Amino acid sequence: MKDEPFDFKTRLLLESQKVERAILDFASQKPPAVPARLWEAMTYSLLAGGKRIRPFLVNASGQVFGVSEEDSMILGLALEMIHTASLIHDDLPCMDDDVIRRGKATNHVVFGEALALLAGDALFLLGPCFAAEKLSQTRHLRSDRILEAVRVLLEAAGPSGICGGQTLDTDETEKTRTSPWRIAYWKTAVLFRACMMAPAFLGEASKEELRLLSAFGSHLGIAFQIVDDILDLLGEAKDLGKTPGKDAFQDKNSFALRWGIETAREMAADQTVRAKSALKGIRRDTKVLEGVASYLVSRGT
Amino acid sequence: MKDEPFDFKTRLLLESQKVERAILDFASQKPPAVPARLWEAMTYSLLAGGKRIRPFLVNASGQVFGVSEEDSMILGLALEMIHTASLIHDDLPCMDDDVIRRGKATNHVVFGEALALLAGDALFLLGPCFAAEKLSQTRHLRSDRILEAVRVLLEAAGPSGICGGQTLDTDETEKTRTSPWRIAYWKTAVLFRACMMAPAFLGEASKEELRLLSAFGSHLGIAFQIVDDILDLLGEAKDLGKTPGKDAFQDKNSFALRWGIETAREMAADQTVRAKSALKGIRRDTKVLEGVASYLVSRGT
Repeated sequence: MKDEPFDFKTRLLLESQKVERAILDFASQKPPAVPARLWEAMTYSLLAGGKRIRPFLVNASGQVFGVSEEDSMILGLALEMIHTASLIHDDLPCMDDDVIRRGKATNHVVFGEALALLAGDALFLLGPCFAAEKLSQTRHLRSDRILEAVRVLLEAAGPSGICGGQTLDTDETEKTRTSPWRIAYWKTAVLFRACMMAPAFLGEASKEELRLLSAFGSHLGIAFQIVDDILDLLGEAKDLGKTPGKDAFQDKNSFALRWGIETAREMAADQTVRAKSALKGIRRDTKVLEGVASYLVSRGT
Repeated sequence: MKDEPFDFKTRLLLESQKVERAILDFASQKPPAVPARLWEAMTYSLLAGGKRIRPFLVNASGQVFGVSEEDSMILGLALEMIHTASLIHDDLPCMDDDVIRRGKATNHVVFGEALALLAGDALFLLGPCFAAEKLSQTRHLRSDRILEAVRVLLEAAGPSGICGGQTLDTDETEKTRTSPWRIAYWKTAVLFRACMMAPAFLGEASKEELRLLSAFGSHLGIAFQIVDDILDLLGEAKDLGKTPGKDAFQDKNSFALRWGIETAREMAADQTVRAKSALKGIRRDTKVLEGVASYLVSRGT
C-alpha cells in the first residue's frame, strides 16, 4: 500500500538523496559574482543535512498536477534555501542562540555572526531568484504561472509568513498575546502551504484546487509542528536533529508543553484528518499527498 | 536647462515628497497576517527619511521607456524596501554597530536586535513580493517582463548583489583581498543598476538598451559611492544623514581615504562621463538620465 508509513520513510530517504545530489551540484557552481566566503557560509548550512521534507512535498504536489520532476526540483531547492535561511537566522545569538543544528555547529559558530547574517539574507533572496531564473529558462512554463509560484515563495518567507511566525515566537510583546496555533501556522504551515501551491501554479491548477491545497498544506504543516513539539519534549534528539528540550527551557509556545503529549497527539491526528478531507475535493489522483500526511503524523506516535 | 544641478535638487525634493506620501500610505495598511510589532519595526525604518534617490532613479528610467508613474512607483517602493532592509542589517551590532541613521535611532536600538533582524528579512522579501503582486494586478504589463523585473530586484539584493557587497565590506578575509571599486560596485552600483533595468524591462526595452542601461547604472552607482566616501571624509553629517568620519574609524575601503579627496573627485567625474557615454547608444530621449548623473556627482564638489 502506497500510504504505509514505512513505505514513505523509504521513499523520503530515496528522494532526499536526489535532493542531496542536486544541492551538491548547485553548491559546486558558485556564481562568479558571489564572494567566496559568503558562498562557503551559504552552502555550509544548505549542505548540513536535514530530512529535505520540503522538496519532497513539492515533488508530491507536482506529481498530482503533472509537473516534471526537474521543475519540482527547482522549486524544492528554492524552498530549501528559504528554509535554511530561516534556520541560520533563528540560530543567531540575538534569536534562539543555538550552537548545534542537525548535529553540526551552527552557521554563526563557524563563520561568525556577521557572515551568518549575510548568508541568511543571501539564501532568503537567492531561493526565489533561482526559481525565477531557472523556471524561465525551461521555456515550457507560462510566465504568469512562474510569477505566481515565485510570489508564493516570497509571501511564505516574508512578514506574512515565516518572518511573521518567528516574530510571534520570539518577541516578548507578541508572545504573550499569541497561541501555539498561530505560531505553528505562520512559522511552519505557511511554508508547507507554499510547497503545495507553488508546483500547483506551474501545473495550472484551478482556483478551487489551489484553495483546497492551501487548506491541505496548512493543516499538514500544523500537524508537523505539533509532532515536532512532541518529539522535542520527548527529547528524541536523534530524530529531531537539534538540541532537545529547548522549548521548555526557552518557554516556547509548544503544543506538547501547553496541553501535554496525549492531547497534542490527538490534535496532530485531527489536523491530519482535516488535511486529508481537503484533498477529497480535488478530482485528481492525490494518493501520494494522503500518504505524506499519514507518514508525517506517524513520526510522533 | 534640464540638467542644471539646482533644477535636479528641486525635482528630487518634489519627487521624494510623492514617494514619502506613497510610503506613508503603504505603511498605514498593515496586511492582516503581519504581526503588529513586526510591521511597526519595518515601517519605522522605511519612514525614517532618506533622499529617496532609488525611486527617483526608477522613475527617470521609467520615463525613458514609457512606463507610467504608477508602475514606476511600485518598483521604486520595492527598491526602497530592499535598500532599507540592507541598512537595518548593516547597522546591527554584529555588523557596523551603528546607533544613528538618518538622524534617528537605528532599528535595533528602538526594537532590539531580534526584531531588527526580522524587520530586515521581512523588507528584503516584501519588496520583490510587493512588486510581483502589484504589477500583476495592473493587467497591462506582460507577465514575462514583470518576472524579469522581479528577478532583477532579487538578484541585486542577493549574494551577487548587496549581500555580496556587504560581505566584501565587512568580512576580514574578503576585505584584505578586495578594492573600493569592487565594493562600490557590489554594495551600491548593483542596486542603481536594478533601478535602471527593472522599469526598462517593464517598458520592453531591447537587449542592447538593457546592456547600455546596465553600464549607465553601474557607473552612476560607483560615482555615487565615491561622492559618498568624499562626503563621509569631509564630515558633512547633515548631507550624509549618518555618523560622519565612520569610514576612517572602521578602516573601510573608502575611495577618499585610499586616494585622497582630489583624486576621488576625478574618479567620480570620470565615472559620470562613462555613464553618460553609455546613454549615447540609446535612441530615446535620455536627457533626464544625463541630468541625474550630473546632479549626483555635483553633490561631492
